[in-house]
Amino acid sequence: MRLLKPLCLFLITLAVLPAAMPIASAAEGMWTLDQLPKDAMQQGYGFTPDASFVDQVMKSSVRLAGGCSGSFVSPNGLVLTNYHCVARCVSQLSSADADLMSSGLVADTPEQEMTCPNIELNRLERITDVTERIAKATQGLSGQAYADAKTAARSSIESECVGSEGAIRRCDVVELYRGGVEQLYQYTRFQDVRLAFAPEYATAFFGGDPDNFNFPRYNLDMALLRAYRDGKPAEVEQFLPIKPEGAQPGELVMVTGHPGSTQRLMTVAQLETQRDASLISYLLYLAELRGLLSRYEDEGEEQARIAQADLLFAENRFKSGEGKLQALLNPAVFDLKRRQEAELREFVRADPQRQASYGKAWDAIARAQQAYRKIATRYNYIEGARGFMSDYFRTARTLVRGAEERGKPDSERLGEFNEAGLPRLQQLLFAKTPIYPEYEKLKLGFSLEKLREKLGADDPFVKLVLGKESPQALAARIIDGTTLGDIEVRRALWKGGATAVAQSKDPMIQLVRAIDPLARELRARYEGEVEAVVDKNQALIAQARFAQRGTDAYPDATFTLRLSYGEVAGWDENGEPVAPFTDIAGLYARATGFEPYLLPPSWLDAKSQLSLETPLNFVASLDIIGGNSGSPIINRSAEVVGLVFDGNIHSLGGAYWYDERSNRAIGVHSASLIEAMKTIYGATSLVDELLAR
Amino acid sequence: MRLLKPLCLFLITLAVLPAAMPIASAAEGMWTLDQLPKDAMQQGYGFTPDASFVDQVMKSSVRLAGGCSGSFVSPNGLVLTNYHCVARCVSQLSSADADLMSSGLVADTPEQEMTCPNIELNRLERITDVTERIAKATQGLSGQAYADAKTAARSSIESECVGSEGAIRRCDVVELYRGGVEQLYQYTRFQDVRLAFAPEYATAFFGGDPDNFNFPRYNLDMALLRAYRDGKPAEVEQFLPIKPEGAQPGELVMVTGHPGSTQRLMTVAQLETQRDASLISYLLYLAELRGLLSRYEDEGEEQARIAQADLLFAENRFKSGEGKLQALLNPAVFDLKRRQEAELREFVRADPQRQASYGKAWDAIARAQQAYRKIATRYNYIEGARGFMSDYFRTARTLVRGAEERGKPDSERLGEFNEAGLPRLQQLLFAKTPIYPEYEKLKLGFSLEKLREKLGADDPFVKLVLGKESPQALAARIIDGTTLGDIEVRRALWKGGATAVAQSKDPMIQLVRAIDPLARELRARYEGEVEAVVDKNQALIAQARFAQRGTDAYPDATFTLRLSYGEVAGWDENGEPVAPFTDIAGLYARATGFEPYLLPPSWLDAKSQLSLETPLNFVASLDIIGGNSGSPIINRSAEVVGLVFDGNIHSLGGAYWYDERSNRAIGVHSASLIEAMKTIYGATSLVDELLAR
Repeated sequence: MRLLKPLCLFLITLAVLPAAMPIASAAEGMWTLDQLPKDAMQQGYGFTPDASFVDQVMKSSVRLAGGCSGSFVSPNGLVLTNYHCVARCVSQLSSADADLMSSGLVADTPEQEMTCPNIELNRLERITDVTERIAKATQGLSGQAYADAKTAARSSIESECVGSEGAIRRCDVVELYRGGVEQLYQYTRFQDVRLAFAPEYATAFFGGDPDNFNFPRYNLDMALLRAYRDGKPAEVEQFLPIKPEGAQPGELVMVTGHPGSTQRLMTVAQLETQRDASLISYLLYLAELRGLLSRYEDEGEEQARIAQADLLFAENRFKSGEGKLQALLNPAVFDLKRRQEAELREFVRADPQRQASYGKAWDAIARAQQAYRKIATRYNYIEGARGFMSDYFRTARTLVRGAEERGKPDSERLGEFNEAGLPRLQQLLFAKTPIYPEYEKLKLGFSLEKLREKLGADDPFVKLVLGKESPQALAARIIDGTTLGDIEVRRALWKGGATAVAQSKDPMIQLVRAIDPLARELRARYEGEVEAVVDKNQALIAQARFAQRGTDAYPDATFTLRLSYGEVAGWDENGEPVAPFTDIAGLYARATGFEPYLLPPSWLDAKSQLSLETPLNFVASLDIIGGNSGSPIINRSAEVVGLVFDGNIHSLGGAYWYDERSNRAIGVHSASLIEAMKTIYGATSLVDELLAR
Repeated sequence: MRLLKPLCLFLITLAVLPAAMPIASAAEGMWTLDQLPKDAMQQGYGFTPDASFVDQVMKSSVRLAGGCSGSFVSPNGLVLTNYHCVARCVSQLSSADADLMSSGLVADTPEQEMTCPNIELNRLERITDVTERIAKATQGLSGQAYADAKTAARSSIESECVGSEGAIRRCDVVELYRGGVEQLYQYTRFQDVRLAFAPEYATAFFGGDPDNFNFPRYNLDMALLRAYRDGKPAEVEQFLPIKPEGAQPGELVMVTGHPGSTQRLMTVAQLETQRDASLISYLLYLAELRGLLSRYEDEGEEQARIAQADLLFAENRFKSGEGKLQALLNPAVFDLKRRQEAELREFVRADPQRQASYGKAWDAIARAQQAYRKIATRYNYIEGARGFMSDYFRTARTLVRGAEERGKPDSERLGEFNEAGLPRLQQLLFAKTPIYPEYEKLKLGFSLEKLREKLGADDPFVKLVLGKESPQALAARIIDGTTLGDIEVRRALWKGGATAVAQSKDPMIQLVRAIDPLARELRARYEGEVEAVVDKNQALIAQARFAQRGTDAYPDATFTLRLSYGEVAGWDENGEPVAPFTDIAGLYARATGFEPYLLPPSWLDAKSQLSLETPLNFVASLDIIGGNSGSPIINRSAEVVGLVFDGNIHSLGGAYWYDERSNRAIGVHSASLIEAMKTIYGATSLVDELLAR
């Protein structure tokens, strides 16, 4: 299982919207900060972001390496983000005796702040174009050779950029426009990150899964982290002050953050693969996992605490995935995509030169999709580890592969082991995070069972893994036998490298060793026959698109910093207007006394002291998607007027196109954020820090 | 949840197979017994079923009213069927003290046979065409009026047929060719049915879900029931003797049974609805339920026993549904369907008369699909009771609706309450079947949660049901409060009718009463806007098809008696031949000591006494589908040479088309059936009865 990815989902299409679909307007677009649509912003809202605005926004925005966004909101390194972005940390810091999920956390002084073992913050410092350098390195190559050359080029660019500053600098080469542009993003890295404030789980997730992606909404999905440098609160030059009055109806608002991934530039063949081969099987897997974990949670308080973060993840991915699938099952969406593609291909065909350069790209991608479909199940279950759901498995694979890869020159390694990325990898590998053996057995047993189900009991790989054991028996034997829960054992294996790994009798290490040749083979096939082909030909399509309409468009989301703009506004639901704000009074009205509509004692006790008409949540026509969780919503003075934590139900199709009529981002309003911290939680010193100017 | 529907899945297409798809041959077709393809059988195998063969086969075949097939195999009412067809009965007859699932059952004398409370057997006696009578009753009508008139006509035909013989006669009007033909099927009804022989669950389900729909296979999925009449074993004139030598390679075999449902004659619009609106959402529901029940089973032996039948059902429906979905995601299948439809429409268009009569049928059906998509979720969750998964709910709805409906003239009632059907309905309503309150809470809580998820927490219906309670709290309150587990309470409410129901304070009765107006409204919309339109226009399409190619084709499966024929033969799997037989030695080789590959002690102990080379399972090119489970596989002398219990993995797309190259039915071989009963289970008297001639 990957780390927590955010709760919201939203999107855009590539400005090629023919009839029948609404014409994209102001609200559409996740813009890179070096290419903001200044004219359109000026025209629409009389506002042009100047250089100092852009600089402040860029230096104040942070990325949570696990898949969220946030912003510096004080000069002393205080970071505002969502509770759901730090939920796994809250869970890791909790135990049966001290359950932060029930109690929340208010640190009155930095000493009371608690270290989040897995969280890394990245602040963008510089963007450099490296398109040509990578083009040169991959010139004339295809398939596996192309993939290898590209990995090598990226690794060396990243390593050069990081230099000897790995502990505080992070460098990522990112592809924009699905391969049309390659850029180097240089970040400052913060690995000592502590939790300063979190409300109760019940408050942050009020409404739970039923209200997820819905509006009207009543959540205080917020948390405060603090970045540390050398053991002290990090001093930052730029930050975004909080405006306690918060967002106003109709005003221009902007969001800066790190949307994870959109598929608006995919070809029709790729979208069909998403629909038929990727989403459905993943959703079915998630649904079963969800049923399993729900029941496990009901077995006791301890089980509930242990499984909560995974269940949350599964439910959220399930709901957003279901929304994406529904969008792809909507014939109107596919018709739009087909028309867009046909138009571009027509443009290419109209000119022999263009036809020669780009004309074959779509069919090549379609063939790569066929190649993918052939290996999809094996690839996802073996190399993608869907069949090996255990924290220990992930650790063991990092150790086994790390030992082998670190013995190679940087440019020849699997991407995740290149020198530039090792600091983050080691942070995760040596993090002191609790692992629960019984729970690991449950997950591993389940996933091994699915492996057998999907590949078949007679499959040689399944036989290699299971032998004559049952999935549950194998899981129990491995989890009981492994010592990888001990950080020192992990350190020794990491340090001991290939020899130590080869000699290890740890059953999880042995399992990973046994399957690694096959897993690597699948990865090589995927990278060579699918990824490389798609990359190369998507780059051609991107060039054709540039030829057609210039670069006056935004790239698909890539977990890089983007700015979207729009306004505070509701929408029409079947002809009925949905008001853009909810208030604290509505929260009390919605409470039932049962989860997930159960208010914690703090809120029940404080009701009479609260201004009940304080705006709690609100919506705005901001183009966001998963990864934007925790993004600040700012006004034209770069003040925080809200905090993105979700999108409405109409945002779920946003992976593929953006419908301004109904797609809305949902935020916590700054006014209730301050009101709750002050009146409910008595977080006086943090509030003072936030409001100091 | 509906009653158990069988494990196998197979199919056919309507003989209009253009290029690219294999040409259908001998093996394709589920033929009604009054219209067997005698010429083709003679041509292919030199065998023509004569009148006495047909009579013997018809009178020896039985239907299990819950959704399976079987056959009389002795003159004293012994019925051969699958274990999985009686699994729910075995579970109902089991308790923590006497677990028949672990021990199996061997009745040495009729006195030791145990009553299956829910099983009803039907033996077909006569087929009468009623197409004209129904056409006359519905002439000129459409929508709700059409649906009402049809229900009324059917009810009166069925009631006339049953007369005062309801206890021993059953009459069903069935639609063939999706409405082209209406026939009255008259059955002899057996409601006193007892279990005479069952092996252990572990033997019957050896290989469990992983091996389900797979081959090579090693299951003894068999059981023997006995039909009783007036407290004594029923004497039957016709039966199928068992041939202990069993099926031979390459020989002509036939299967007679009750395939439940195929969708080979559906229009493209209907198939798209199946793919996009029906199957996916149902599979996601099943997947989550499966995860939940799996975990529940792991909590203890008692839980395992309680949930086993439901889990089995969910897993089987899941696997077969996934196979159907995969078939519909296969572009080749849709291309075939589109070509077939285009050809028929072209044929219709070519003649103005035909165009006037049939030309609008396809578009009308397509519009009905749109109407269905709009209500599908509400219809399935409310009227279809997907949101109310509890045995008590089903009972309560029968009582509430029964009270209302029985007050109306027969012809105006909801179909399931017409006079002719009451004996079966009462059998189920008053059956002494165990209900487990904690388990009911689990299922009801889960399904109410899904109801809220799918309709939304703000939906008025959800608010009506839940009020301020959580799904789990409501489920607990209702299950704790209901007294419907008491048969006498049910009898009193049934007898007391509308007044008793209106006065009932039982919380489940109250719930059903509260939602019934809305549920009935949805049903009326479904029947009027969807079902009636589809029925009427499918009848037109059927007529067009008859005009094009006569009635020399078989209708879609409708849970009526059919005969398929083919031969004992393996198939090619990726170029490798799969042999058609497995043997008992292979069973021992496949056993691992872990479920579901765990052999029970009886088999481990008896190994040395068995003929290990005895054929255990085999495959044949027989066109079957779910509902055929338990069907006898017979030779040209009407001797039982095997027992259908499944189809191979390639059979899963068979709902939509039949691919003779790889579609195979899987059967238990008669030789191992006898060998196991004799040597493992010492079922001497039953074996003697089976082999007596």
